[in-house]
Amino acid sequence: MTKPIIFLQKKFREEFTEKIQSIAPDYQIKNTLTEEDFAAVEISVGWAEKFEDQLLATQKLKWVQSISAGVDYLPLDKFSEQDILLSNGSGIHALSISEHIIGVLLGYYRGLNEAVKKQGRNEWAQKSIHYDQLAGKNLLVVGTGHIGQQLSKSIHSLGVNVFGINTTGHSVEGFAETYSIKNMAKIVPEMDIVVGILPGTHETYHIFNSDIFEKMKKTAVFVNVGRGDTVHTKELITALEEKHFAFAALDVFEEEPLPKESPLWEFDNVLITPHISGMTIDFQNKFMKIFLSNLKSYVSSKELTVNQVEVKRGY
Amino acid sequence: MTKPIIFLQKKFREEFTEKIQSIAPDYQIKNTLTEEDFAAVEISVGWAEKFEDQLLATQKLKWVQSISAGVDYLPLDKFSEQDILLSNGSGIHALSISEHIIGVLLGYYRGLNEAVKKQGRNEWAQKSIHYDQLAGKNLLVVGTGHIGQQLSKSIHSLGVNVFGINTTGHSVEGFAETYSIKNMAKIVPEMDIVVGILPGTHETYHIFNSDIFEKMKKTAVFVNVGRGDTVHTKELITALEEKHFAFAALDVFEEEPLPKESPLWEFDNVLITPHISGMTIDFQNKFMKIFLSNLKSYVSSKELTVNQVEVKRGY
Repeated sequence: MTKPIIFLQKKFREEFTEKIQSIAPDYQIKNTLTEEDFAAVEISVGWAEKFEDQLLATQKLKWVQSISAGVDYLPLDKFSEQDILLSNGSGIHALSISEHIIGVLLGYYRGLNEAVKKQGRNEWAQKSIHYDQLAGKNLLVVGTGHIGQQLSKSIHSLGVNVFGINTTGHSVEGFAETYSIKNMAKIVPEMDIVVGILPGTHETYHIFNSDIFEKMKKTAVFVNVGRGDTVHTKELITALEEKHFAFAALDVFEEEPLPKESPLWEFDNVLITPHISGMTIDFQNKFMKIFLSNLKSYVSSKELTVNQVEVKRGY
Repeated sequence: MTKPIIFLQKKFREEFTEKIQSIAPDYQIKNTLTEEDFAAVEISVGWAEKFEDQLLATQKLKWVQSISAGVDYLPLDKFSEQDILLSNGSGIHALSISEHIIGVLLGYYRGLNEAVKKQGRNEWAQKSIHYDQLAGKNLLVVGTGHIGQQLSKSIHSLGVNVFGINTTGHSVEGFAETYSIKNMAKIVPEMDIVVGILPGTHETYHIFNSDIFEKMKKTAVFVNVGRGDTVHTKELITALEEKHFAFAALDVFEEEPLPKESPLWEFDNVLITPHISGMTIDFQNKFMKIFLSNLKSYVSSKELTVNQVEVKRGY
C-alpha cells in the first residue's frame, strides 16, 4: 500500500524535512505531486487554489496546516463536510506586524513620513512639520488575538493605554479594558488610535464603515493590518475627504494590489504599504515550531495542539 | 533700589509667570527689557546671542536656565569668568527623541520609508521592499544621559539589546554593558545600530568619523540626534558612498539648515529630518518642572537642584 503523503506546498530547509520524517516515519514527504499522488495526500502544508479539486476529490485529506494566519481564502465549507482538520500560522507574524504598527504610528506622530516626502525635494521644512507624542495616547486594538496581544505588550511599554475589542468583550491580559464588537462604536470616540487586526469572516465584513469613521476623534489615526474587506473602502474614502479623522495607515485592501487609479494613493494623510506588515525574517523556524508540534500530536492521536481553527467559525 | 529681574526670553503661560512670582516675590519678571533693565537681570531663562553683550556687561547676571539640553552655543568661558550658574533643559525632550529614534529605526527595518516614496508613484512594490526585524538587534547608545536612558528603557522593551558609551565607561541602569568613549571603535563591529546622542564639546567633535564608520557592520544603521558636529560630514558621505554600513537617519548637521546642494539629500539609504527629534508637546509644563524647582533652591540658597551644567566641562 502507498504511504500517505505530507504535501509541502512551500520549500522548507532540509533540516526541517528531516525532522518531519523523523516524527512521521510512515509518511512520504513531497514538494511536488504526480497525478496519482494527490489521492494519497493526508496532510497539506499550505494551500493553493489550483490543487483544491484534486486534494478534495478522494476524501483522503485529513489536515491542512495553513501558513497564513487568515484562512478566509480556504474552502471552509468543504473542509467542514469532509471533517478536515485545520490549523493556521497565527503568531508567526505577530512581532513583525506589531513592529509595523508602532512604526507607522511613530512615522505619523513624529513627522517622519512628511520628512521623507520633503527630502525628495531637498526641502528643510522644520517649521511646517507636524509633531505629536505617542506616549499617553489611547489605542483600541480591534482583534485581541496573537497579534493584538503582542502589540499590546510592546506599545504599552511605550506609554500607550491599550483597549481591546473582541467578539464577546471577554477580558484579555495586557488590555486595560475590552469591549464586545457590537459595542465598538460606543468606545471609538474616546480613542486616539484604532487598529484593525481582524480576520475576514461574515461578522467582520465592512465592520469599519462610516458609522465608525464618523465617531472617531478629528485627531485620530486608523490603522488596518487585518483583512482588506473589514474596511468599507468607499466610506473610508468619504471619511478621509470629509476629514472625520486625521490619518490612516493601510496595509491591506479590498482589492490587492491596490489599483493604480484608487484615490487612496493620493491622500497626503494616508500611508499606503503594499501588504508588508507580516513580512517576517526567520519565518521557517517560527512556522516549524507550530507545524512540528501539531505533527507530533497528529501522528500519535490525530489531534492538533497549536493554532487549531474551528472550521465553521473561520478563526 | 531696583528689584532684580528674571528675564524670560520666551513667552510662558500666565499660570507659570504667576508661579514664578510667588516663588520669587522680590524679583521682577520681564519678557522684554529696556536699556537700563539689562543691568538688573540676575536670572535669564533662555539665551539669545543678540543680548549677550548687554547681559554680561555689568556682572549682575548670576544664573542662566537654558531651554535646550545642549549648551555649546553659550559663551561658557565668560560664564566661567563671571561665576554664572548654568542649568539646561535636559530631559524635556527625552521622550520625543526616544520616539523619534524608534520611529526612524522601524521606518527602515519595516520598509516604511520606501513605501512612502513608492506611494508618490502609485506603485505597489511588495516584492522589492526591504524588511527586517528590530527585536533582537544590538544597539549602541553613544551618550547615556537622560535621552539615552529613556531610549534604553523604551527600546529594550521592544526586544532590543542595549549597550552604552559614556566618558568613563561607568555602568548605567538599563544598559547591558557600557564602554568608555575611547573604546567605542572596539565595540562598534558587534552593533546593528549606533545612535549618537552626544553634546557638542571639544571631546565629541567629529567623533563619528571614518574610523568608526569603517568598523560598522555592512548591515548596520547609524542615527544621529546629538550635535551635528559630532559627525565628520565628509567622511560620513564617503562611508555612505562606499557602503560601509546600510542606512543613516540624520536629524542634526554641521550646517543647519542642511544646504540644498548637500549630497546627503540624495542618498536612497539616508533619511534626512530637519532637526525635529526634540519637538515636544506639552513643552511648557515639562520645562517649568525644571525651572521652578531650581528657582526655589536658588531663591533660598543660590543653588540649583536640577540639571546644573558644569560650565567648564560643557555638560
